[in-house]
Amino acid sequence: MKIKHFLFGRPLSTEALQDERMPKWMALPILSSDALSSVAYGTESILIALVSYGVAARWFSLPIALVIVLLLFTLIISYRQVINGYPKGGGAYAVAKENFNPLLALVACAALLVDYTLTVAVSSTAGVAAITSAFPQLVPWNVVLSVLGVLLVAFINMRGLREAGTIFAFPTYFFILNIFVLLIAGLFQVLMHGVPSASIPMPAHIPQGVTLYVLLRAFSSGCSALTGVEAVSNATPAFRDPTVKNAKGTLLYLGILLFIMFLGITLLANMYAIAPSPTGNPTVLAQVAAHLFGHSWLFYSVQFSTALVLFLATNTAFSGFPLLASIVAQDGYMPRQFSARGDRLSLNFGIIVLSLMSILLIVGFNAKTDALVPLYAIGVFLSFTIAQTGMVKKWMKEMPAGWRAKVFINGLGAIMSFSVVIISLVEKFSAGAWTIAIIIPVLVWVMFKIKHHYASVARQLKMDIDEPLTLKRTLMIVPVGGINRVVRNSLEYALESSPAEQIVAFHVALNKEEEEKFKEKWKAWDIDIRLETFYSRYRSIKGPLLRFIDQVQRRAGDKFEITVVLPIFITRKRWQRALHNQSAYFIERALLRRKDIILVKVPFHLHS
Amino acid sequence: MKIKHFLFGRPLSTEALQDERMPKWMALPILSSDALSSVAYGTESILIALVSYGVAARWFSLPIALVIVLLLFTLIISYRQVINGYPKGGGAYAVAKENFNPLLALVACAALLVDYTLTVAVSSTAGVAAITSAFPQLVPWNVVLSVLGVLLVAFINMRGLREAGTIFAFPTYFFILNIFVLLIAGLFQVLMHGVPSASIPMPAHIPQGVTLYVLLRAFSSGCSALTGVEAVSNATPAFRDPTVKNAKGTLLYLGILLFIMFLGITLLANMYAIAPSPTGNPTVLAQVAAHLFGHSWLFYSVQFSTALVLFLATNTAFSGFPLLASIVAQDGYMPRQFSARGDRLSLNFGIIVLSLMSILLIVGFNAKTDALVPLYAIGVFLSFTIAQTGMVKKWMKEMPAGWRAKVFINGLGAIMSFSVVIISLVEKFSAGAWTIAIIIPVLVWVMFKIKHHYASVARQLKMDIDEPLTLKRTLMIVPVGGINRVVRNSLEYALESSPAEQIVAFHVALNKEEEEKFKEKWKAWDIDIRLETFYSRYRSIKGPLLRFIDQVQRRAGDKFEITVVLPIFITRKRWQRALHNQSAYFIERALLRRKDIILVKVPFHLHS
Repeated sequence: MKIKHFLFGRPLSTEALQDERMPKWMALPILSSDALSSVAYGTESILIALVSYGVAARWFSLPIALVIVLLLFTLIISYRQVINGYPKGGGAYAVAKENFNPLLALVACAALLVDYTLTVAVSSTAGVAAITSAFPQLVPWNVVLSVLGVLLVAFINMRGLREAGTIFAFPTYFFILNIFVLLIAGLFQVLMHGVPSASIPMPAHIPQGVTLYVLLRAFSSGCSALTGVEAVSNATPAFRDPTVKNAKGTLLYLGILLFIMFLGITLLANMYAIAPSPTGNPTVLAQVAAHLFGHSWLFYSVQFSTALVLFLATNTAFSGFPLLASIVAQDGYMPRQFSARGDRLSLNFGIIVLSLMSILLIVGFNAKTDALVPLYAIGVFLSFTIAQTGMVKKWMKEMPAGWRAKVFINGLGAIMSFSVVIISLVEKFSAGAWTIAIIIPVLVWVMFKIKHHYASVARQLKMDIDEPLTLKRTLMIVPVGGINRVVRNSLEYALESSPAEQIVAFHVALNKEEEEKFKEKWKAWDIDIRLETFYSRYRSIKGPLLRFIDQVQRRAGDKFEITVVLPIFITRKRWQRALHNQSAYFIERALLRRKDIILVKVPFHLHS
Repeated sequence: MKIKHFLFGRPLSTEALQDERMPKWMALPILSSDALSSVAYGTESILIALVSYGVAARWFSLPIALVIVLLLFTLIISYRQVINGYPKGGGAYAVAKENFNPLLALVACAALLVDYTLTVAVSSTAGVAAITSAFPQLVPWNVVLSVLGVLLVAFINMRGLREAGTIFAFPTYFFILNIFVLLIAGLFQVLMHGVPSASIPMPAHIPQGVTLYVLLRAFSSGCSALTGVEAVSNATPAFRDPTVKNAKGTLLYLGILLFIMFLGITLLANMYAIAPSPTGNPTVLAQVAAHLFGHSWLFYSVQFSTALVLFLATNTAFSGFPLLASIVAQDGYMPRQFSARGDRLSLNFGIIVLSLMSILLIVGFNAKTDALVPLYAIGVFLSFTIAQTGMVKKWMKEMPAGWRAKVFINGLGAIMSFSVVIISLVEKFSAGAWTIAIIIPVLVWVMFKIKHHYASVARQLKMDIDEPLTLKRTLMIVPVGGINRVVRNSLEYALESSPAEQIVAFHVALNKEEEEKFKEKWKAWDIDIRLETFYSRYRSIKGPLLRFIDQVQRRAGDKFEITVVLPIFITRKRWQRALHNQSAYFIERALLRRKDIILVKVPFHLHS
């Protein structure tokens, strides 16, 4: 307990929940680290899709980045409208729940849960890639470092939201500062020395092989830079009052920052004609930084802040996943444990599940970012599509002032998001996207099964308050292994709650002589409780006991409540437990499976 | 159940135990496969210790083998006396128990248990070595094949003794036949063509480097050929009547066979000046067979039968370990589970423990016989020493006719056995024997702890039959989560066993409004049972419930029996269990740890 309090802090009361909400300056770094850190691999993803078609092909990263930025602003405007309409959070799930049937809401939810898990895996492995770009000798420790990063972020989140904020605010701002220094240095370079000669000019004609198909693939890869923009609207309730205004403001700042950083890095990469390394090491961002800063402390600062922000990007998922899971669990589609807040008000079950699944992914994919990226983005853009289609439906139903413009914006966003889903699914199906195409439906099916179960339980539990209680007479069966204190305790309990004639002791003998001896000893004890014995030829105690109970139950009929009184040894030390209770444990399991048998456990505390 | 019966056979009644006893012709192969199969690596062990001192040094394998054979006969005679004195089996353990304090008996027992485990590991890896001597392409599958062998023998033993006998009789006889064919072929060779020119003659002077130290090391290594001779006396009760006579006869046959085979193979190895291969492949025995038979079917027959008998040698351990563990468990020094016979009368717990430990050894030592051998023999000879010293003590106390001769034989055996222990310990300490020097004392300490615990439990359970039962009034605490059928069931049970004024319902509310609402609903239900509620600021249900129970217990004092009625959901399908009962489980665990609280589990069976 003391260790727990030292590690996780003292318990917080439910009233403290309000205090755990965040001001804007703290919400921005917490909720935007995922989206902002995407610039560390967004440009690189576009270039990887173009690199095999020659230097000139790489120029197309510029128009593609522009299209992605256009998509970004459609999404920002649309999600500001989502915050307005759904201030209680839940994002795509909340929108879909209100505007569609549960199926689409659960699809959005499954997509988001999968995406959060991938965010943790992709961000932590990309974070390690930023480190190994500066220190290549660390490459063999890829997996270990990624997993340690996940565990650290999970631990911080289990301490609760506020501490998480304080810790995470600094590195995100530090990363933003570093990227801006990088961009300003680039601008300064152009102003002082003009555009570098290495820069790739717009090609006069489209290079060989660069088809629409290739451009679409580059576009869809680049869309990974937009993952995470939904985090703000999903976590609206985590904002301090005025919640809606603060959330919308934060989302706008996020959009502007992402716009500048993503476009800026893509421009710089083009200016120095940077090609992505086939091994992913050094990263494109590291190459840009090396061009501008050499290997000075500024270069290491960029790499360090990138690694840090990427690790902290996992925090967006650690905020989002448990919150979404908790909302969906409250609706009955996920196990209830997801909605229980721990001592520190954190949603520990969700945090633990997310950690385990992402660590599995990291280990399974050997911490390779480029292997994980094909699985990514599909989930996010699927949820984007559902959310924005939901908004379109909402505007068409409610028809507020200027609803046509709103429908246009959300409709455009929906179409573009859906295009990204289709393009990603088609282009990356064999590269791993097929798993997502299986996992999401399976998750949805499981969630329906869970809902069905909880609903069925609720029906079975429901009772009529006017129906009177029906009392039966209890019939107590007391298995007795010998004549000793444990047996005495059990019989005492039986006599306390039933008249002696409703009690029967049952003894299983492993040989004939022992059976006779036991009967005599019982008679000598003279306690006026009926004894039944059974000689078990096959040395089983459980079997004859269960058969005896069945017999009694059959004969007793409906008027009696059958109760079995089982003595349980409670040992003082853990290791001693291995020396007792094996048969009691198996008997208990078998009895609980039978209908209408009440089990009484009489503990016997051993004092040494 | 059906699968279980198909795999392991129908259950056998306790009366069938007598039928499971073995006639001599079946006991010989079962109990001697360990000792006889030792000839497959005994000669090789001696030669490995001599090989680095030149060809002439290898001649000394002959006198060393003679000394070992002398030791063998001392042991055989001594153990025949043990069978006479201790027909109930247990071997060294039984002898030590009667003649010494429990400490020495437990040392013998621990030594034997360790030795049985090593027997399984060494024999199965040596068996695989015999196979790979014939088929070198199988070398990479060493570990897998060894483990599979162990599992197979374990499985057969779990089916029960008689089937084990039928299966194991044939291969041991087949191995004996093969070795005799080999020896006769060698004899024929000498009679027809004289001693081969390659044979190593007695050197005129002792070769450089061959010190007493080296010879002792070779001797101690060769003693691994004697492991297993104690099996017959340990398993005396497994013989058919007349038990003692049959066991003694079997032991004598075993001695004669071992004598001929071990000495014969050592002679043949000398005749062809065979040097052990540094990789252990092919084995010395395989080289002898290849010299005499070439690579004809006779060669493969020798290798096949050797592999088979070595695998089956593990069976000696699978007979001995569980039987010894069961005897010691009956004395209270090991967990009781070891003495419970399964459906098929086999001592399954011992079989499973032995399998797991030996598989651990095989995997840990990468299935290398020569790495395991240094751990071997110490345990056996330690138990030999204790057993024979015990016999000396017995003769000196009882002084039967000719007791001086008996003391001399047993005393000589004790001294020789003890010498082997000391030599092995000194020469192989750093090669792994130190682990044995740690494990045996630790095992003994654990066995004393277990005995102490069981004895203490027996004292705590003991009661005076004349002391009258003391009945208290039961005070029932019923935690209620809502107003529904489960709660109704629990309250019905409470009312059946206690008057209403001795029952209190307890509700933990997670917020203030809910608390008030629940109180009102309870009033509306109108069932005349007192309700206490508590608002839990820290969202814990367990904590407030336990504190409430403590309060009630304090106030009630000694006159009341505190009973907690917990509803338990029984789901229809396994996966549904994950959706329920988490808090009930933790509450139960916490309650059982408290003193004098009786726990009633009221199962609620969900029908979907």
